[in-house]
Amino acid sequence: MARIGIDVGGTGIQVGVIDDHLKILSEASIPTCTNIPFSEQVERMAACAEAAVNQAGLTMRQIESIGAGLPGVANISTGEVIKCANMGWFHVPFRKEFLKHVDVPVFIENDANVAALAESVAGVSAGTSSSVFVTIGTGIGSGIILNGKIWNGFHGIGGELGHTIFALGGDPCPCGNHGCLERYCSATALIHMAREAVADHPDSEMMKMAGGDPSRIEARTVIDAARASDPLATEVYGKYIDQLAQALANIVNLLDPEVIVLGGGVSKAGHFLLDPLKREYVKYVLYNDQPMPDIKLAVLGSEAGIIGAAMLS
Amino acid sequence: MARIGIDVGGTGIQVGVIDDHLKILSEASIPTCTNIPFSEQVERMAACAEAAVNQAGLTMRQIESIGAGLPGVANISTGEVIKCANMGWFHVPFRKEFLKHVDVPVFIENDANVAALAESVAGVSAGTSSSVFVTIGTGIGSGIILNGKIWNGFHGIGGELGHTIFALGGDPCPCGNHGCLERYCSATALIHMAREAVADHPDSEMMKMAGGDPSRIEARTVIDAARASDPLATEVYGKYIDQLAQALANIVNLLDPEVIVLGGGVSKAGHFLLDPLKREYVKYVLYNDQPMPDIKLAVLGSEAGIIGAAMLS
Repeated sequence: MARIGIDVGGTGIQVGVIDDHLKILSEASIPTCTNIPFSEQVERMAACAEAAVNQAGLTMRQIESIGAGLPGVANISTGEVIKCANMGWFHVPFRKEFLKHVDVPVFIENDANVAALAESVAGVSAGTSSSVFVTIGTGIGSGIILNGKIWNGFHGIGGELGHTIFALGGDPCPCGNHGCLERYCSATALIHMAREAVADHPDSEMMKMAGGDPSRIEARTVIDAARASDPLATEVYGKYIDQLAQALANIVNLLDPEVIVLGGGVSKAGHFLLDPLKREYVKYVLYNDQPMPDIKLAVLGSEAGIIGAAMLS
Repeated sequence: MARIGIDVGGTGIQVGVIDDHLKILSEASIPTCTNIPFSEQVERMAACAEAAVNQAGLTMRQIESIGAGLPGVANISTGEVIKCANMGWFHVPFRKEFLKHVDVPVFIENDANVAALAESVAGVSAGTSSSVFVTIGTGIGSGIILNGKIWNGFHGIGGELGHTIFALGGDPCPCGNHGCLERYCSATALIHMAREAVADHPDSEMMKMAGGDPSRIEARTVIDAARASDPLATEVYGKYIDQLAQALANIVNLLDPEVIVLGGGVSKAGHFLLDPLKREYVKYVLYNDQPMPDIKLAVLGSEAGIIGAAMLS
């Protein structure tokens, strides 16, 4: 039987049909629209799923399940989306609404949890029983896999590494607290650190790359300049790596999974991110004379959202 | 069948015999000795276990298992103790040595994990499937129970909440890192905060209670003075509660267990600790409009070490 995975993103919604071997048979997508009623959003999503199924040469009767991963929090038992700001959803009965259009079991989950599941089934952490997936992008997302299953907490509100307190009384976070981990470890944090640094060093290579405009410095700017051995970028990136290493050590000291998987925009730096991190995190692990979790780069990329969602049950 | 639980502490080793209803049938103890060889330490422990069994009117043949909880890290598969500074043990074959004296399965675990298991089976978190136990004493210990079982990590080095980074670049910790959570949330932290505060306020009630000697201020001094509404103690205790609330919110945001259980010396403050904590931690939880973990006080006290160790399998 085939399954459908839906990846609900900020700009677009990707739908994929997956076979038993986790191979994507077909894909379809629609733009994310927030200026239409919830019922219509779901209707369009269901129509897109139907189109993907047809494109794969199948009918809905041959579909075992439909899963959706979304950036927010959901009650996976009732199928209610509690909060998904990107879609403008607050306490909406997603499953109930979707079932008006299809006669197939519908599941929902947080998108980082979905990506964690995908990597642990079909990606770099396949074959492991426990892993923590960390997405390093605008914020820090995380998904925990224990005994082969998503652990999102007893009330479904866990897996939010990015909003654990990491710098007591530190920088304010849009969530309302101070010192959240994502303020120090996300792409946004790296950009912020670089923009602060160039204020005192306007002759930095990063400024040249940004056309003299600090607001045009992106995470990639810092990484590219550090790769090119620019001293200021090297210093900023080194400090960022040190902070991220401490964040990963927190995962080890508390959860000690078999492997930690890094995804998201910053992870595209590849070994230029992974190699220094692997050197640095060890010193922050309490029992660092023992075997400890390996750190690996995610391999599924944008497909993770579809594959993981299709695996929901 | 009865079981034996051994609680290895810094000053004494408690042995208890437990029946099927988790009732303690008999207890025996020996002082902790570090100036004798490992083999002799284990021999005395086994003799103490034998004495406890006899005292219960049983023989070793009626004992199903022997479990030991110790402050340190152990390989629960091989039965090797990796590190237990209190006993002077580094990479010692505990199980192998113990089996020279008894013909009963022998298990070992970290003591905070053991206490977490005890509370989840016979204590305040009985009936829950997931809980995190936090001991607030000289340091911060923690034990994680997921799906009814101890989760100590894939490599056995997890459950160390006290050494997660909580204040990036903060106070140095004996572990070698800076800003460890236990530097801000343990009894030691509370004492340190109070001693710093009285330096500027030598007329504080806390100073009177300590006979004018700041080095005699203990956690209990601060708590008793705050109870008596001393302004400085109230301020120090309020700040401490705020820090501890953020630490507990970290557990919620990352793991979201069904319940968080507080044990250790500071938890003896009872509702004077619990009530303000329950008011404060909510604001640090990301999805705080959702149901979230309850916080409760441990109920088993010193028996937790024996009962939990006897439950190991």
